Amino acid sequence: MLNVELLTIGTEILMGNIVNTNAAYLSEQCVGIGLSVLYETTVGDNEGRMLDAIRRAISRADVVIMTGGLGPTPDDLTKEMTAKAIGRELVEDPHTRERIAAHFEKSGRRNITSNNWKQATVIEGCRVLDNDNGTAPGLIAEADNGTKLILLPGPPDELKPLFREQVRPYLESLQEDHFYSRMVKICGVGESAVADRLKDLIEAQENPTIATYAKIGQVHVRVTAKARTEEEGEALLAPVMKEMHARFGEDIFTEDEEVSLEETVVRLLKERGYTISFAESCTGGMVSARLVGVPGASEVYRAGLVTYSNDAKHKLIRVRQETLDMFGAVSAQTAEQMVLGVCEAVGADAGVAVTGIAGPDGGTPEKPVGLVYIAAAVHGRVCVKENHFTGNRQKVRERSVNAALDLVRRMLLESGDGERR
Amino acid sequence: MLNVELLTIGTEILMGNIVNTNAAYLSEQCVGIGLSVLYETTVGDNEGRMLDAIRRAISRADVVIMTGGLGPTPDDLTKEMTAKAIGRELVEDPHTRERIAAHFEKSGRRNITSNNWKQATVIEGCRVLDNDNGTAPGLIAEADNGTKLILLPGPPDELKPLFREQVRPYLESLQEDHFYSRMVKICGVGESAVADRLKDLIEAQENPTIATYAKIGQVHVRVTAKARTEEEGEALLAPVMKEMHARFGEDIFTEDEEVSLEETVVRLLKERGYTISFAESCTGGMVSARLVGVPGASEVYRAGLVTYSNDAKHKLIRVRQETLDMFGAVSAQTAEQMVLGVCEAVGADAGVAVTGIAGPDGGTPEKPVGLVYIAAAVHGRVCVKENHFTGNRQKVRERSVNAALDLVRRMLLESGDGERR
Repeated sequence: MLNVELLTIGTEILMGNIVNTNAAYLSEQCVGIGLSVLYETTVGDNEGRMLDAIRRAISRADVVIMTGGLGPTPDDLTKEMTAKAIGRELVEDPHTRERIAAHFEKSGRRNITSNNWKQATVIEGCRVLDNDNGTAPGLIAEADNGTKLILLPGPPDELKPLFREQVRPYLESLQEDHFYSRMVKICGVGESAVADRLKDLIEAQENPTIATYAKIGQVHVRVTAKARTEEEGEALLAPVMKEMHARFGEDIFTEDEEVSLEETVVRLLKERGYTISFAESCTGGMVSARLVGVPGASEVYRAGLVTYSNDAKHKLIRVRQETLDMFGAVSAQTAEQMVLGVCEAVGADAGVAVTGIAGPDGGTPEKPVGLVYIAAAVHGRVCVKENHFTGNRQKVRERSVNAALDLVRRMLLESGDGERR
Repeated sequence: MLNVELLTIGTEILMGNIVNTNAAYLSEQCVGIGLSVLYETTVGDNEGRMLDAIRRAISRADVVIMTGGLGPTPDDLTKEMTAKAIGRELVEDPHTRERIAAHFEKSGRRNITSNNWKQATVIEGCRVLDNDNGTAPGLIAEADNGTKLILLPGPPDELKPLFREQVRPYLESLQEDHFYSRMVKICGVGESAVADRLKDLIEAQENPTIATYAKIGQVHVRVTAKARTEEEGEALLAPVMKEMHARFGEDIFTEDEEVSLEETVVRLLKERGYTISFAESCTGGMVSARLVGVPGASEVYRAGLVTYSNDAKHKLIRVRQETLDMFGAVSAQTAEQMVLGVCEAVGADAGVAVTGIAGPDGGTPEKPVGLVYIAAAVHGRVCVKENHFTGNRQKVRERSVNAALDLVRRMLLESGDGERR
């Protein structure tokens, strides 16, 4: 198994200016294709420390993935220090120079400085990875000891496409065996319960391997098969995937790494030709915001209401005053009336209502912080669920959003895709 | 200036399971008190690599801050490897043992295993930092070369209070000079414009120093004075802060590191005894969600509407059909009617409406992706702003949320705090 070191270059990371999400992305990607990440190191834009870190990484890793320090300014030194570490020269790459010129022409910029042309220089003998989203190309070089050095630009919207389209296939080509994986995403089952239900499979695992990732309100399980061919890989995955479905059934909302829970809900709605609306209290608009985050949500989503006060619940979506008085705003009864009220007010086929106590204040012994009622409705049929979430205000709210989207997903599955209003 | 190395212990980071937000938090905190972070390293729960990384950090840093690997399971080895690296023994700390026993008694757990008692062992001669939010205490030990080793638990809600209350004062005590800082948070001015306007101050900086941090839709400027006493520090800060206010005026929404833009809006509303409501289109509930994220928001916020479709804008908040037909949903006219409509529907003193094109689709030459109209109203007085935001769908939406909260903040400032409805 090849081992990888991630080397992040940038004083802005060491200052705490930005969170290093690239490292998490690259780690997960590497693990997904069967590589082992042993070290992650961050150094600033400092020649000595950069050189030292690159040399150490070359001495201990098969593959070094460097991010950052490829910009046009004088303190961007990743190429220079890498070339020095492996005893190569920097040379101008005419192809990259042309691409940079074209980029500036397209964006209407005239004042190209010598700094900009610095981005056209590459390490001699390296492979150049064209960057369609910026002016800094990626590079792949090789040290004398055989260690591969992959240099990528720092901005995530440049790094991710470069990795996906060019680096990933390259890394796969380094290995005799290839890795084929599925990301099974599960909602409505806790992490330890998922691990328990998979215990025998995890303990017996050889090929495919199984790894669980806890997310807020979701658990993701990566199943990875090692094989020489795709066919062989799929044949190895098939029985495990069958077992996953037998054990988790509708708790699984997708097997596709790129698909989110809200995208799944939007797809189910589109397949059925349904519209959806939300009535939110403690989540304050987060459920709507998650769904509207899906491009093309306008096909299924028309409106949502954030009815935070009792008055708003009563006036805007007709929750009965007696219900609020008798059972309180945080109750199954109120949740049910909220969802029916918002579907009616907006004229939607489906809906979800959320009402709960997110904390830190407002809890009582009978209704503690974390108590959240979620009601989902499809064509007037309602399902209400009582939840007890742990964590701070933000966590309780995020868990509520997941549970809300999950509940309506399950109701949509039940409603079939033949049924039309 | 003391230099720091951050050492994160945990295979889950190397797997990409979680993003290392602790490193960003600790970096920013260290920089804020005048320390220099030179390296950030992450290794997994592996004895050899952990020991190697600890020894290297001791050889090159004045202070090593380690996070993670203090849990009860056998693969939590940070204490063990640190003790080994500095040639000390692990001993049981009776005080910590008592605290752990009390913790379990309080939570009603009976089955305390020998693994749990492992958390009561500490490095001989170290200082123990009581952890009020978990069972793993923090530790401060010292290597023979004088390097300080600070061990902290990985969960952020344990790490942050421990750092703030115990580690920060300790680090300050190591330095003869102390650092006093203000975090000036600015909205409505871009990062490069802020840098331009501060160019002379940044170039001439000695003490205080000035560092800018770009956030989405905001720029934060940290002004840090080095001094022997608080009085001296404040005296150094005063003229720079005066200059900051002269240059940015109402663009500054707080000088307090802990205060967010939405908290500022909630405070201004409370001071005036006003309520607020939102009508959102492209932001899909994000403005409401941000405001409701502030504990106690219920005092000022009753309801919000996500009017995504034209139909919803017309029916729920009475945007005139002619306006939608003539100017379109994304227009200053629609934004104005949305904000007045939602204030009326909800019965609020103030409001904000957002309508725009977040992309990736839906743009035209006249109305390109990124065009967002924001209207704010206070007691019927309306202000509409046309914005052109860059970035992907999520970025455009986040920038819109900031701009929306900022616009109503400015209107609230203008409305004074004496005015009551």
